[in-house]
Amino acid sequence: MLRPLTLIAALLCFAGIASAQLPASAVPEKYIQDNEQRHIQELIDFVAIPSISSLPAHKDDVARAAEWLKTKLLAVGMTTAEVMPTDGHPVVYAEWNGAKGKPTVLIYGHYDVQPVDETQWTSPPFTPKLDNGRIYGRGASDDKGSVIIAVWAVEAMLKRDGKLPVNVKFLFEGEEEIGSTSLWKFAREHKDLLRADDAYCADAFQKGDEQAAMVMSTKGACTMEFSLKTANRDLHSGVFGGKLPNAATALAEIIASFHTADGKVAVPGFYDKVTPMTDEERKMAASYPYDEEKELKDNGATVYTGEKGYTSQERAWYRPTLEITGMWSGYTAAEGFLNIVPASAHCRLMCRLVADQDGNEILQLIKKHIESHTPTGVTVSYKPMVGFATPAAKFTSNSPAFKAAVTVLTQLYGKPPILMGTGGTNAALSVMKQELGLPAYSFGFVQEDENFHSHNEFMRVSDLQKGQRAFCMLLTYLGK
Amino acid sequence: MLRPLTLIAALLCFAGIASAQLPASAVPEKYIQDNEQRHIQELIDFVAIPSISSLPAHKDDVARAAEWLKTKLLAVGMTTAEVMPTDGHPVVYAEWNGAKGKPTVLIYGHYDVQPVDETQWTSPPFTPKLDNGRIYGRGASDDKGSVIIAVWAVEAMLKRDGKLPVNVKFLFEGEEEIGSTSLWKFAREHKDLLRADDAYCADAFQKGDEQAAMVMSTKGACTMEFSLKTANRDLHSGVFGGKLPNAATALAEIIASFHTADGKVAVPGFYDKVTPMTDEERKMAASYPYDEEKELKDNGATVYTGEKGYTSQERAWYRPTLEITGMWSGYTAAEGFLNIVPASAHCRLMCRLVADQDGNEILQLIKKHIESHTPTGVTVSYKPMVGFATPAAKFTSNSPAFKAAVTVLTQLYGKPPILMGTGGTNAALSVMKQELGLPAYSFGFVQEDENFHSHNEFMRVSDLQKGQRAFCMLLTYLGK
Repeated sequence: MLRPLTLIAALLCFAGIASAQLPASAVPEKYIQDNEQRHIQELIDFVAIPSISSLPAHKDDVARAAEWLKTKLLAVGMTTAEVMPTDGHPVVYAEWNGAKGKPTVLIYGHYDVQPVDETQWTSPPFTPKLDNGRIYGRGASDDKGSVIIAVWAVEAMLKRDGKLPVNVKFLFEGEEEIGSTSLWKFAREHKDLLRADDAYCADAFQKGDEQAAMVMSTKGACTMEFSLKTANRDLHSGVFGGKLPNAATALAEIIASFHTADGKVAVPGFYDKVTPMTDEERKMAASYPYDEEKELKDNGATVYTGEKGYTSQERAWYRPTLEITGMWSGYTAAEGFLNIVPASAHCRLMCRLVADQDGNEILQLIKKHIESHTPTGVTVSYKPMVGFATPAAKFTSNSPAFKAAVTVLTQLYGKPPILMGTGGTNAALSVMKQELGLPAYSFGFVQEDENFHSHNEFMRVSDLQKGQRAFCMLLTYLGK
Repeated sequence: MLRPLTLIAALLCFAGIASAQLPASAVPEKYIQDNEQRHIQELIDFVAIPSISSLPAHKDDVARAAEWLKTKLLAVGMTTAEVMPTDGHPVVYAEWNGAKGKPTVLIYGHYDVQPVDETQWTSPPFTPKLDNGRIYGRGASDDKGSVIIAVWAVEAMLKRDGKLPVNVKFLFEGEEEIGSTSLWKFAREHKDLLRADDAYCADAFQKGDEQAAMVMSTKGACTMEFSLKTANRDLHSGVFGGKLPNAATALAEIIASFHTADGKVAVPGFYDKVTPMTDEERKMAASYPYDEEKELKDNGATVYTGEKGYTSQERAWYRPTLEITGMWSGYTAAEGFLNIVPASAHCRLMCRLVADQDGNEILQLIKKHIESHTPTGVTVSYKPMVGFATPAAKFTSNSPAFKAAVTVLTQLYGKPPILMGTGGTNAALSVMKQELGLPAYSFGFVQEDENFHSHNEFMRVSDLQKGQRAFCMLLTYLGK
């Protein structure tokens, strides 16, 4: 299934990227190697803080992670570092501004993490474990590893040279996993503070040990939680079964109505603002090295499904989706049995959006669809979700920031990065582009198979050094 | 909606029941009244034991409830009382055999209870609370209240008279809520021990303070739990959404396929052994006093649903049903959000059966249906359930035991009992009929609105005395 990387070569050629080589002196190699053991322990300490942004019970942990990061940023030698309040979880902002006349580089990342289903983890998610060259723990890969690598790169250069080749600003938020809601207002209100010439997003991953990648588009997203009610309490299935509505069945009918038999989303109007894929996108998807059999096997799956008329890669990168992320009704304890007709049922869903789809509009369309498919005798209610309506984002391949990243990655990995789309969402990219005019190119040194958002998330120790080298080379290149 | 009780009067007339009056001396009135406060405390103690038969973690509690009951039976003066092992939870058996030449009466009940969803209870389900003439707690009404009333009636007669008018056998099981599985073998192996002339089932209820009722048919039941699997772990909804199967959606589609648009069960073969309702049944359903508006209001429901072509009463008593009792998939915690494509989904369902439907056959038909509706890329597995395949049962209105119960209830309530069907299942009735040749007529003194199987289950204190009077009168009548 591996296809020749002809398109990527063509794109890079178009972008005018020569085979410029950065000198070995760009990387404080000795410092990076000498400090590896201490760095591993630092990452372990960072991951141990359960900074789950979506759970109110972890609010203090999120704050604690922010403070930890600020302290670290000051320790490595940033000119300033502070925990700045937002309407939600705080932003950690730091800058080093001693490179007069040189460009300013903004590096984005996030220190919050996804929730966990502890029952599915092999080791406790917040007791990070170093095992066989991997650090296991929630957030190790998404995104604490990538964040701390960028900070260590600055540390290494400052410790060796006493200065950086460019001015650096770090923008680390605590709400990426809940849609970066507060970042919109924060960016709007701190345009001057965040002003920069180039921007990079450390919330990114590479294809593997020997292949770098850059993401040229992300999907938008919106989420919803709704509940059905059929009675004021669960009812005896003998007394009321067969004559009063069953909330579980009603929910199943609604969920089953969300898709057509050919895998399209059946919500009227859902595709109205979706534009067809461009030829370039179609080619990027087709030329992406992609072993379908291996992907299926790795995930314990047997078959690709989804919208007819598209390859699975096209579906993942360029077609909008509607997925149920959770549903529950009635008696759901691991053991036992309750002879009931459930009186309530609950559903969480998430759409990934493309092109001009507007998350809030889509949620309204879904509500309308739900209501038109709600059986008699069933009432629907919606739980206000932490604002999770993010537009999709696209990046051009003709900017200096793009050129710098490609040059560094090409030298470091011995071949050009793969250019790709993603089905993932990073609202921060939309914020930086729309509010600050900064396309933030992906530059993160974790790998795509490290179980982000799932159980047994991990990060490879070998990427700790490689990532620092990459950032040092990038800053050197930009400071030329 | 209240209809004249003409049919019932006709049936009772047919049964040859005269307006025989039992003398006031049949009831040890003073003893019953003098001991009310102590009895209330006893019931509270009994209910406080969380004897949930379906949860292995409560195995010792079930055993403790059995011991409590045995101790009580010996204390009231039964000749023998013992906790007898079965393949599952034990049976508590007791007898008083001092009425030579008199008939022997077998009284059935159960001391196990349903599980609880504590979050829905107003007060802790196993810290029984006396409030405004009601005792709240799991099992207060189903079936510990009814069981202990029968025991107290024997206590009252023995304390006043030193003897009973008939021989009495108590058969109290600990597996009613999980289908009385072990009772089949126990009854088969103890036919002599359990031999009796008449039998009554204390796992029964009355219509209200002023209206008695007798159940003339029960439904059978079978249950199933199945799971779907689409991958070896929950997947990132951005990376895999839209291209790999979603277990929640697959389950919803299967559940939605269980019923047709007109409310019939869509499983092929489901109705093959269902016989049409008899005229007598149709009339019994039609003449049952039944306030549909009130029932809807009481349950917070707005509309009857179900199989077209039948009244809601006919659906509840005489038509088989398939109800989802629980389903879950993906992220179901109360708060937070996980951006996943769930890799597994789980479903519990229960059928109520009528006529000659065989539970095990029905489960096989459902499996076949599930498999024919399982989308590509999804695997199904089944969890072996605690044996829950019980046949339906019907009772005649021309036996001496029926006549005795009707006579007592008519005198006690001032009017004849209503004869009714039920959608509920009591496997013990099938066991006693098939293994012991004993139709066990319903004789229990809780009321139908006391939230059996749901949260905030309660029992009315006023029924404690009334129930004792009823049993004393019944034993007196049978001893004539």
